[in-house]
Amino acid sequence: MMGSAMSFPARDNGHEVRLVGIHNRETIESVKANGWHPTLKRTLPEGVKCYHIEDLQTALDGADLVIGGVSSFGVDWFEQTVLPLLPDNFPVLSITKGLEKTPEGNLVPFPVAMTRRAEAQGRKMCLNAVGGPVTSYELAERQQTCICFCGPDIKVLRWLKSLLETDYYHISLTTDIVGLECAVAMKNAYALGVSLAVGKNKIEFGEEGVLHYNPQAALFEQGTTEATRLMQMLGADMRNLMFFTGDLYVTIFGGRTRLIGTLLGQGYPYTEAREMLAGITLESVAITTRVAEAIRQQEKLGKASTKDFPLLMLIDDMISRGGKADIPWELFPQEII
Amino acid sequence: MMGSAMSFPARDNGHEVRLVGIHNRETIESVKANGWHPTLKRTLPEGVKCYHIEDLQTALDGADLVIGGVSSFGVDWFEQTVLPLLPDNFPVLSITKGLEKTPEGNLVPFPVAMTRRAEAQGRKMCLNAVGGPVTSYELAERQQTCICFCGPDIKVLRWLKSLLETDYYHISLTTDIVGLECAVAMKNAYALGVSLAVGKNKIEFGEEGVLHYNPQAALFEQGTTEATRLMQMLGADMRNLMFFTGDLYVTIFGGRTRLIGTLLGQGYPYTEAREMLAGITLESVAITTRVAEAIRQQEKLGKASTKDFPLLMLIDDMISRGGKADIPWELFPQEII
Repeated sequence: MMGSAMSFPARDNGHEVRLVGIHNRETIESVKANGWHPTLKRTLPEGVKCYHIEDLQTALDGADLVIGGVSSFGVDWFEQTVLPLLPDNFPVLSITKGLEKTPEGNLVPFPVAMTRRAEAQGRKMCLNAVGGPVTSYELAERQQTCICFCGPDIKVLRWLKSLLETDYYHISLTTDIVGLECAVAMKNAYALGVSLAVGKNKIEFGEEGVLHYNPQAALFEQGTTEATRLMQMLGADMRNLMFFTGDLYVTIFGGRTRLIGTLLGQGYPYTEAREMLAGITLESVAITTRVAEAIRQQEKLGKASTKDFPLLMLIDDMISRGGKADIPWELFPQEII
Repeated sequence: MMGSAMSFPARDNGHEVRLVGIHNRETIESVKANGWHPTLKRTLPEGVKCYHIEDLQTALDGADLVIGGVSSFGVDWFEQTVLPLLPDNFPVLSITKGLEKTPEGNLVPFPVAMTRRAEAQGRKMCLNAVGGPVTSYELAERQQTCICFCGPDIKVLRWLKSLLETDYYHISLTTDIVGLECAVAMKNAYALGVSLAVGKNKIEFGEEGVLHYNPQAALFEQGTTEATRLMQMLGADMRNLMFFTGDLYVTIFGGRTRLIGTLLGQGYPYTEAREMLAGITLESVAITTRVAEAIRQQEKLGKASTKDFPLLMLIDDMISRGGKADIPWELFPQEII
């Protein structure tokens, strides 16, 4: 969906756009027929050319840029299927956000991890990624959007910006890949965290009861603190924290993550909540368990403390060990001196 | 209202509470009669003792702590009327947040400015303040709340925390007065900024149209960036940024500031919007004009740049010069390298 939505700024800037479907053949057939994208529920801009996956090579022929639109669950497939087809240093812009955990417990952004693996095979990559608050529906409505491209080379980033910036799609640039990726990956975890208060509100005030904001704000605050700590641990440029806060704000209203957080806050065990949301991919769950495990590993090495991440540890406990949504409020206060 | 709401944690911890009304005699009479607080719309805890302003001295007799509950518009009155009645070093906890501008264009937190003036008269002050996301209504419902006390002496702050922390009122502490005060003052300005998108949404999609979040999130992001820049300019500890983000989140849903921001976003000139909200005190307006003026003064000295604060400058232009809500989206993107 986000990959398809990127056709709006691309086509508005006059570029030729070739949309390749991976397994969603019906979507491609529908767009081909009359431009209608059935899950995005919008008509794509005129002139988008459509390809099924078996025609990927044809679609790549003469392209200047590949935009990768898979979710974090498809990132291995993208790495193994698409990247090998590209020449060395071919520019890629990925909308997939996330961090990989190494066996040693280090957290590495997807594009960095992929670049390293490719380099180990003697290949050269030019992987860049998008982060920041954007929903595909609203991008497809040309709503004002401010996001960030990250990558290793500012010149490439400026070129990408020149291709895709419009009067509604505003692009910051950063070479701090780990900072941006950490910021936008962690907002998934903490959007689940803030939503716990929405679930607890339902218990206290009823299904349609008036929402209360002190508890949500307290969790937003704690999320900011824990994201800051993680970003500092990874050596990030803290200016990229703005993409965490903006993205957290939009994700709280954003559907899937709010749903699971609300159910957990209402007291449903994770296994039950997951069944109630069958078929929904939950990036918030994947990133939480991965980062929590990394912090525990780093703690054993004396390089981190789980005590600095009480909210993340609670969420992980609920997801990984069926723990209850007992928010450890008393662990949140700190002395800043 | 917030001063009255503070009676909940204070009484829950078994303290004697003496509530002094300034000009709101009816509120005091009502609480005296049956505990009902008419504007807070809640019954105060049992045992709160009530005083009119002429009995202030009686109320102070034997008190251990004064909690000042005036808005930023009453802060001069508090300084001139209440502080002179207190012995040297008498502990005060103020819920008033804000920054004063010196004639030279420096921004000084209220408690610091008051302490300096008192010291110039040979007096010694012990002024502390509360900041962070809390609405008085929800504190009075004992909703989970995480705020911060700031002051010059960590020992005094720890004592204040020991008096007022409960299992729903969680208190961080900081000696970085300027950091906390700047964070929580600026959220008023930027909550107005985010609300502009709510108003623009009404124009594009109708009064009851579906809310869109990309633009709001972009403004939240830009607010985070500009608040960070201002805090850094004032030498703040950036860990206190968490109180900006949490407080911004709750203030966006909070009534007065959202109302004025929405009206401005809908295209009403400020003078008209102000009339529509007659009688409502707008801390967001006061802080915006004051800080914008300070930045302009600092710019002349080569110590700041208005270009670093395009959203704040827009808001100030609307308020101070009847400018239109033309959000300068194209000025927001930056390079973080």
